[in-house]
Amino acid sequence: MPAPPPARLTPAPPLAGGTQGTHALRPLVDIALNALARGATARGGPLPTGGPHAVAARIRATATPVLPEDGTGADEALHTLLQALAEGAADPADPRCAAHLHSPPLALAAAADLAVSALNPSLDSWDQSPSATALEALTTRALAALAYPDRPAPDALVTTGGTESNQLALLLAREAAHGPVAHGPAAPVTAAPVTADEGATLPAARTAPGHRAAPPGPLRVLCGANAHHSIHRSAWLLGLPAPEVLPTPSGVLHPDDLRAALARRHPGRTLVVATAGTTDAGRIDPLPALADLCDAHGARLHVDAAYGGPLLFSDTLKPALTGLERAHTVALDLHKLGWQPVAAGLLAVPDAADLRPLAHRADYLNPADDTEAGLPDLLHRSLRTTRRPDIVKIAVTLRALGRRGIAALVEHVCASAQHLADLVEAHPALELHSRPTISTVLFRPIGADPHTTARIRRRLLHTGHAVLGRATTPQGLWLKATLLNPHTRPDDLRHLLTLVEGHTTR
Amino acid sequence: MPAPPPARLTPAPPLAGGTQGTHALRPLVDIALNALARGATARGGPLPTGGPHAVAARIRATATPVLPEDGTGADEALHTLLQALAEGAADPADPRCAAHLHSPPLALAAAADLAVSALNPSLDSWDQSPSATALEALTTRALAALAYPDRPAPDALVTTGGTESNQLALLLAREAAHGPVAHGPAAPVTAAPVTADEGATLPAARTAPGHRAAPPGPLRVLCGANAHHSIHRSAWLLGLPAPEVLPTPSGVLHPDDLRAALARRHPGRTLVVATAGTTDAGRIDPLPALADLCDAHGARLHVDAAYGGPLLFSDTLKPALTGLERAHTVALDLHKLGWQPVAAGLLAVPDAADLRPLAHRADYLNPADDTEAGLPDLLHRSLRTTRRPDIVKIAVTLRALGRRGIAALVEHVCASAQHLADLVEAHPALELHSRPTISTVLFRPIGADPHTTARIRRRLLHTGHAVLGRATTPQGLWLKATLLNPHTRPDDLRHLLTLVEGHTTR
Repeated sequence: MPAPPPARLTPAPPLAGGTQGTHALRPLVDIALNALARGATARGGPLPTGGPHAVAARIRATATPVLPEDGTGADEALHTLLQALAEGAADPADPRCAAHLHSPPLALAAAADLAVSALNPSLDSWDQSPSATALEALTTRALAALAYPDRPAPDALVTTGGTESNQLALLLAREAAHGPVAHGPAAPVTAAPVTADEGATLPAARTAPGHRAAPPGPLRVLCGANAHHSIHRSAWLLGLPAPEVLPTPSGVLHPDDLRAALARRHPGRTLVVATAGTTDAGRIDPLPALADLCDAHGARLHVDAAYGGPLLFSDTLKPALTGLERAHTVALDLHKLGWQPVAAGLLAVPDAADLRPLAHRADYLNPADDTEAGLPDLLHRSLRTTRRPDIVKIAVTLRALGRRGIAALVEHVCASAQHLADLVEAHPALELHSRPTISTVLFRPIGADPHTTARIRRRLLHTGHAVLGRATTPQGLWLKATLLNPHTRPDDLRHLLTLVEGHTTR
Repeated sequence: MPAPPPARLTPAPPLAGGTQGTHALRPLVDIALNALARGATARGGPLPTGGPHAVAARIRATATPVLPEDGTGADEALHTLLQALAEGAADPADPRCAAHLHSPPLALAAAADLAVSALNPSLDSWDQSPSATALEALTTRALAALAYPDRPAPDALVTTGGTESNQLALLLAREAAHGPVAHGPAAPVTAAPVTADEGATLPAARTAPGHRAAPPGPLRVLCGANAHHSIHRSAWLLGLPAPEVLPTPSGVLHPDDLRAALARRHPGRTLVVATAGTTDAGRIDPLPALADLCDAHGARLHVDAAYGGPLLFSDTLKPALTGLERAHTVALDLHKLGWQPVAAGLLAVPDAADLRPLAHRADYLNPADDTEAGLPDLLHRSLRTTRRPDIVKIAVTLRALGRRGIAALVEHVCASAQHLADLVEAHPALELHSRPTISTVLFRPIGADPHTTARIRRRLLHTGHAVLGRATTPQGLWLKATLLNPHTRPDDLRHLLTLVEGHTTR
């Protein structure tokens, strides 16, 4: 005998979507914004005071128990936790927060992202994201065309950031080198019915993509010591040998060093990784010379332009990226120079067909008969399955500002870096590492040893006065200012140097 | 001679953070919410009409050019693109949108996520996320304790979803099996100075984690045909042999089949993947019996509880997950039964020390002297680098609803599924595949062949009447209703069946 129908939940917590969702959202968003404002005022600076122990103690006192038996209600929870979050944040919108490639988001991008949270489209199948699927296709092609302006059909995948973009670049190179790695002794394998639940079919020849019986040999990755740590981590993840690392004492990969390394290698199984915007100093590898060498030796080229890529928006700055268009893959990242909330990564390829190695079938998402009937097959657009459309906030930003508007922001932060370098050079107690290439400035008190420099940075953090980064070069340890805030004024830069000076002498 | 200081941008697009951010956000959020409301009204149903071609044409007409030379301004861009997004969405808040594990988010969770977009904390270093780091630590431990209630120090990583959780589970198993895969012929490798930019140091023995000279052999993965497709894709990604797949004609992995398969294998190099909530039918593998077999054979056990995991919140439902606490890793996903906006995945482990294989060093983020000075080392908490604190919306939800409040939602959707199954059984023209285990109901017109069933689903999509999924079993193809909406009423379920009937007879 059937059970009675389920009772309605009273009160049912309101949903964000549907025709009534915005009525529920408005008062809750208002509470969230009030909490943010109060938290920022209470913080009163770029980050909280007291260091990790003190911040953790305050959060523990406020947030415990994190899973109570009975809830406190939406209003209280939003108010309490979001105010604590804001009060304890390192806020990149404060000009004294300039350590990392940690961007202050544009208000319009954050507002656009709210719509994504409310509607919750997921890009693993069309029937979870009809409009978002279409918007992503248009927008990724337009962004890929920035990197590959002369190609008829460039494309880009949306990623969680430069790290995932680099990982995908290594994966595509691994597959292009014909097979992942030489596996150990082969054991009998029942073919994997990737598409079937409940054992309905066990097709004899179906195997997971990329599993080939006898790959000719693993891909080898070649990169500079200036490459991002994610290159090494990705090789490990993918079961590839550790990358060969070429020293970069000048901060960039020297073509002579690459030439010598390539001469020792098997053509067609080498991926060279160059960087356009190093994490530590914002330097750009000599892309045309490196691309020539890759061509001559039949090596693939990946350019990690997670930081420098948005110079492409600017007519005056984009010549610094000449050669980028010759790469097999390019990592871009609009949560760095792009003012997006995390995540807003991209991996661009010169031709949409280059993404074929990522093709994947799952019967409940892209069965053959649905694809034949015109439902888009989306699984090759990410290694994730459920996937938030991070493209929406990007699309709103591109439309709102236009290419010239974004270029103006990029040019402004680069000019700010030049000005900070000027101020350091004119300062009697500070030394500059080198003129900035993008928007990173390395400097320190004249003659400061690594211990002193590291201690200055930690004191600035502990007192809540400023967030500066650090970078090691052959000349030792430096303070790093990564300027990403388009609202930063010359006064802010002078103040930053005054803070450093104050923490040096004490 | 230094350049003049950079001119201020006029008008500079406002930022979301800082003490002024909320003033900028309020009017823009208002525009976004108005656009959402208008879009939902214009759509007038669970998804847009006309199918993929029509939706893509409308988006193209509205959104082109996606990167204009000059921008249209924030108000126009938000209004235009977000209304088009909402009008073309498949909205899981509509009870007729019930195809996938595609959750309608709670308004309070979406509001909390706005604060994250505005502040933009990044969890790769403490100085980008002081409070978020502390909140994540507390909250992941509380969630891990749901899966491992008797362990002193369980922990969980936050992921982009079940797919990344499964990938991490396979990676941890690969590393526990002592090394990734047998690499091809060894080539000379310059040790990777993972921590150094600009070639400052080239330590002789430093290699990327996990690269060992002579691994004893690759991990082999054993799973049922009912396992998620991401198990296969993860093995491919990680350079592991394709999983061995055991047939699951009953919908779950039978212990006898696993016993026979384990008897053929090398102890200590096998990972068994069980599922608690299959994607197609919501079934739960017999966890205690499978855990016994893994124990007896020295195999690791991963439980993919991306769907079923939140039954742990409910006193009445959690007995279905007995045995889960014996797994080495558990995938959970609060953007399924958890009503979070994407992403809200978790990978739980019984002991925080189990995450050690993910340890990773990058000099600019976690240098040894900073770690010694008390700055938290965070890189082992994800394979991503930049990382949005998805834990914030989760923490707000846990506090607002409490364990009992979340349990009530889980119990309600499970009761709705039982009621839908009752309605199908009582319906003269429909047949039920089996009684639901969680909240998935498989059904079809009596005797419908796969072609007919697939066509009904596509007709419902094309007309914009309903979003239902599909699942293949030994008995053929079924329509799939995955009930995740806690506001769904018995009337909505009856209406869903009426729509299916209407598209059958036409």
